[in-house]
This record gives sequence, C-alpha cells and structure tokens, in this order.
Amino acid sequence: MSMKGFVDRMTELNLPNSIFVDCTSSEEVTSYYEAILSANVSIVTPNKKANSGPLEKYQLLRATAFKRGAKFLYETNVGAGLPVINTMNDLLLSGDKVIRIEAVLSGTLNFIFSSYVEGKKFSDVVKEAKLKGYTEPDPRDDLNGMDVARKILILSREAGWDLELSDITVEDLVPEDCRGEITPDEFFARLEKHDSAFESLRKKASDTKAKLRYMAVLDNGVVSIQLGAVDEHHPFYSLSGSDNIILLTTERYSERPMVIRGPGAGAHVTAAGVFADIIRIGHYSK
Amino acid sequence: MSMKGFVDRMTELNLPNSIFVDCTSSEEVTSYYEAILSANVSIVTPNKKANSGPLEKYQLLRATAFKRGAKFLYETNVGAGLPVINTMNDLLLSGDKVIRIEAVLSGTLNFIFSSYVEGKKFSDVVKEAKLKGYTEPDPRDDLNGMDVARKILILSREAGWDLELSDITVEDLVPEDCRGEITPDEFFARLEKHDSAFESLRKKASDTKAKLRYMAVLDNGVVSIQLGAVDEHHPFYSLSGSDNIILLTTERYSERPMVIRGPGAGAHVTAAGVFADIIRIGHYSK
Repeated sequence: MSMKGFVDRMTELNLPNSIFVDCTSSEEVTSYYEAILSANVSIVTPNKKANSGPLEKYQLLRATAFKRGAKFLYETNVGAGLPVINTMNDLLLSGDKVIRIEAVLSGTLNFIFSSYVEGKKFSDVVKEAKLKGYTEPDPRDDLNGMDVARKILILSREAGWDLELSDITVEDLVPEDCRGEITPDEFFARLEKHDSAFESLRKKASDTKAKLRYMAVLDNGVVSIQLGAVDEHHPFYSLSGSDNIILLTTERYSERPMVIRGPGAGAHVTAAGVFADIIRIGHYSK
Repeated sequence: MSMKGFVDRMTELNLPNSIFVDCTSSEEVTSYYEAILSANVSIVTPNKKANSGPLEKYQLLRATAFKRGAKFLYETNVGAGLPVINTMNDLLLSGDKVIRIEAVLSGTLNFIFSSYVEGKKFSDVVKEAKLKGYTEPDPRDDLNGMDVARKILILSREAGWDLELSDITVEDLVPEDCRGEITPDEFFARLEKHDSAFESLRKKASDTKAKLRYMAVLDNGVVSIQLGAVDEHHPFYSLSGSDNIILLTTERYSERPMVIRGPGAGAHVTAAGVFADIIRIGHYSK
C-alpha cells in the first residue's frame, strides 16, 4: 500500500486513540502529518523534517493537533532520549521564559572534536568517525552543520521564537572545494589538503588550554552555530564521546542554567524516547 | 477549620478532578494523604515526608492513587524544578532499568563545600551559609545528611528498590560533641574546635587537586552518603553554588550516564516545579 493509500484508509476507518509512529527521516512522510492529525490520530516521531521545515507547517501541525484533540510529540527530535523538549515545555507552561540556550547538539561532531587531539589529522578523525558508523553515509551531512541547525531551530520555536531555517547563521565545516558532487574518496582526498588549517585552529585552542566544540547558541531570538574554543571553566569542556549537552537559561534559572547532558544519539536511547512519548499519550488518554 | 475537618469536608463534597497541593514540610499533613487520594483528589507536593517515611506508607499511597484514578506527583521532592523523578519514570516506563545513581542533592552542603577554600575556617563557612539563609534554621539539619538521605531514598524507591531510611548509611557531618540540645551560639563555639579536622580533610583533597563533595550513591540497591574528594575529571568537580547534580546510569545509558544539573533549591524553581505537576494532571484529565 502506498503512503497515501495508507493514510486514506486510516482516515476512512476513523481511529481515534491511535498513534502514528514515524521512525523515518523522510520529508515525504511528514507531508501526511496534517491529514493524520485531522483524522484524530496522534503522531510520535524522531523525524525532524516537519518541525524544522517552513514555520507555517510547524504552526499548522500544532493548530491541527490542538483542534482535533490529537497529540504531536517529538521529544527525540533533539538529544534522542534526553528530556529536553518536555523539560522546556514544562518550564514554559508554568510561566517561565527562555532567555538563552547554549548547546552541543551533534554527537557526531562532538565525537570528532573530542577525538581530534595532538598528533592526529582532522581528515583521519573524520574517516575514523565514518568507519565507526558515527557519521551519516556522507560525512558532509554532519560537517555542514545542518543537522545542528534543524535541532536548534526546533528548540528556538518551542521556546517561542518564530524563526525559519534561513534565519540561522551556520558555520559550514565543509571546505568550499570539498562541496558538490564528489565521491567519498575524492572528498577525503580534498579534505586532507585542509588538515593544516584545522590543525592551526586546534593548536591555537590547545595553546590556551581550550578545546574545540561545535556550538549552537540561541540568544534573545538570534541563533548562531559555530566552531569555538572553550576553556576548562566552560561546561562544554569536559564533554566526551558522542554526548550532547543543553544549557537552559531562563527567567527562573537565570543565575545558573539548568543543564541536561548525556548520549544524544543511538538506536536504543532514541527508541526509548519514542516509546516514552507513546506512553505519555496513553496517560493523557486515560 | 482543622486539617481533619478540611479533609472530611473535602471527602463529603466529592471533588474529583481536584488537586490538593501540600506546600508544607509537615509530617502531620501527610497523614491525610490516603484519605485525600481515597476521595479521588490528586496530590501535588514538594513535601518529602510521605515518600521518605515507612515503605508501607509509600506503597499504600501509590496503590490508593492507582485504585482511585487520582494522581500523586512530587517532582519537586528532589532537585526542586529539575526534571529528575519524571525523567527516571519515563526511562523505567519504557523498559529501562536504573543501575546506579550518583548525586549531589543538597544545595546547602554544595554551597558550603564550594565556598570552603584555602584560608577559610569551616565553622565560618557554615556561619556564612546560615547568614545567607541557605541553611535550615538549625544548620545541623543540613549537616547531619538526613535531607540528602530522604532524597536518595525517594529516588531509590522510584527506581524500584524497597528500602527504608534505616537501610541508608549516612555520614553525619555534625561532630559528636556538637549534637543534642544546645544553642546556635554554643553549636558554633563547639564546631570551631573541629575546624582543624575539617581543614586537614580539605588540604588532603586540595593536595591532590581534588575537591570535597557530599555525595549520595545508589549502587545495585545499596545506598551510601558520604563526604568524598573528586578530581577534575569527575562530573561533580565543576559544581558551583547551590547546584544539584544527578547522574543516572541505566541499562540504556550504561557507557555514559544521563546528567541533570542546576539550581536544586529555592522558592521560585520549586514553585515552578509544583505548578508543572499541577499542569501535568490537567493534561491527564483531558
């Protein structure tokens, strides 16, 4: 059955108290979300495409879910099983206001910059991450920062800022001559030529006892994503492996932020987060 | 109206979809919880007394709430507004198992040990914490570790371990000759005589570049609470002010723990957490 046939049949059958779980990362599947919610069927998904697409779509899905009494839950859009979106919503619903979000949202990039120590070449570290299965099939899909941009966009929208993906300034870590239609081998061959440029960044950070981190910051409605150096007093300094970290500074958590940290990717923790959202809908429906 | 009169009247009136919010720390009020839940009224509270009392009472309240379709929520029992109990419950409900909890659960004691640096006397630091309003009226109620014991007991029970308060080994930081019925002045006069003992602990930690932290650990059903030294690689090392931190190691978060950190006490963040629990019940009742 085609996706359209499936959704048509679902609408026909009238299935309230049902949940549609989208475990794809397909843009096409998200085009059916409105029809699914309109059929009073709730949606749970780790798929970021709907929430990081046009603002209009983001808003329409919320309005539809609300009107139909259906739920649209996506805790795993950011940080997999880490309690980020629900925690922020709890704060907002109880009257708090998000002032600033600082985050490391890519487990892949954190693995790369945690592994990138003296004596290693940047291109080798990226190759290692790819071999270990930490990167997308094309590592440029991680290095270009778009995955991080989508995640911080979702957090920013949840925090109440009406932003589009195009409003976000992203530092693309893919050197210009490594972009476009080239094979993986060709990509790595070209990336090697930039090893010394990355090395000088690493050394400059290391000389001041700092570490490189690929960070996303939302500050008063403005989002920027860049590679920066953090010193030992910064909460991102001790981040290891493929961990994510999210610092929430709000009106109530103003002096010191609320911090959520831990493995932010992986099949098990993502599946657990999806399952927790499903159970949450079960609670709501009692 | 007496508390008993109030509860009787509430039962008489039959008020489903109502919520009883207990913002006291009174043991007496918790003696009415069963009657309140039996009247189909939900309870939201930061009061730890019911959940850290006899295991039998803890279990009876859950059974009563479940039977009556009422909710009993107490996210603020641990870490004020930090999402600790709900997060752990999400993990457990989705089939995870808690292996280990390591935590700093007393904002007061963390403030004391964060402020206790070279050149300061321990008794002066405690005095300063009292003057700033960070301690209980009698600072010994913080130093004896019982507040931490109650919190880790609640987390342990939530994680599925049938423990009593008496099962927990607590390092009491109140020196023996400072206990009993004495005035605050007398307490501080006596505490001064132990400054050198605390100083040698501090110096021993400091000599190995470590810091003192008052830590609670649940490991495979065994709970211990003690003052220990942590080095710069430990996640508790950088803890500042009156922050709390909770590390959850579970079957799914086994390689690296999930970490929740932030201000764990204070009127604003506690009130927000209570309010979030109230809203949660609103969601359930839709």
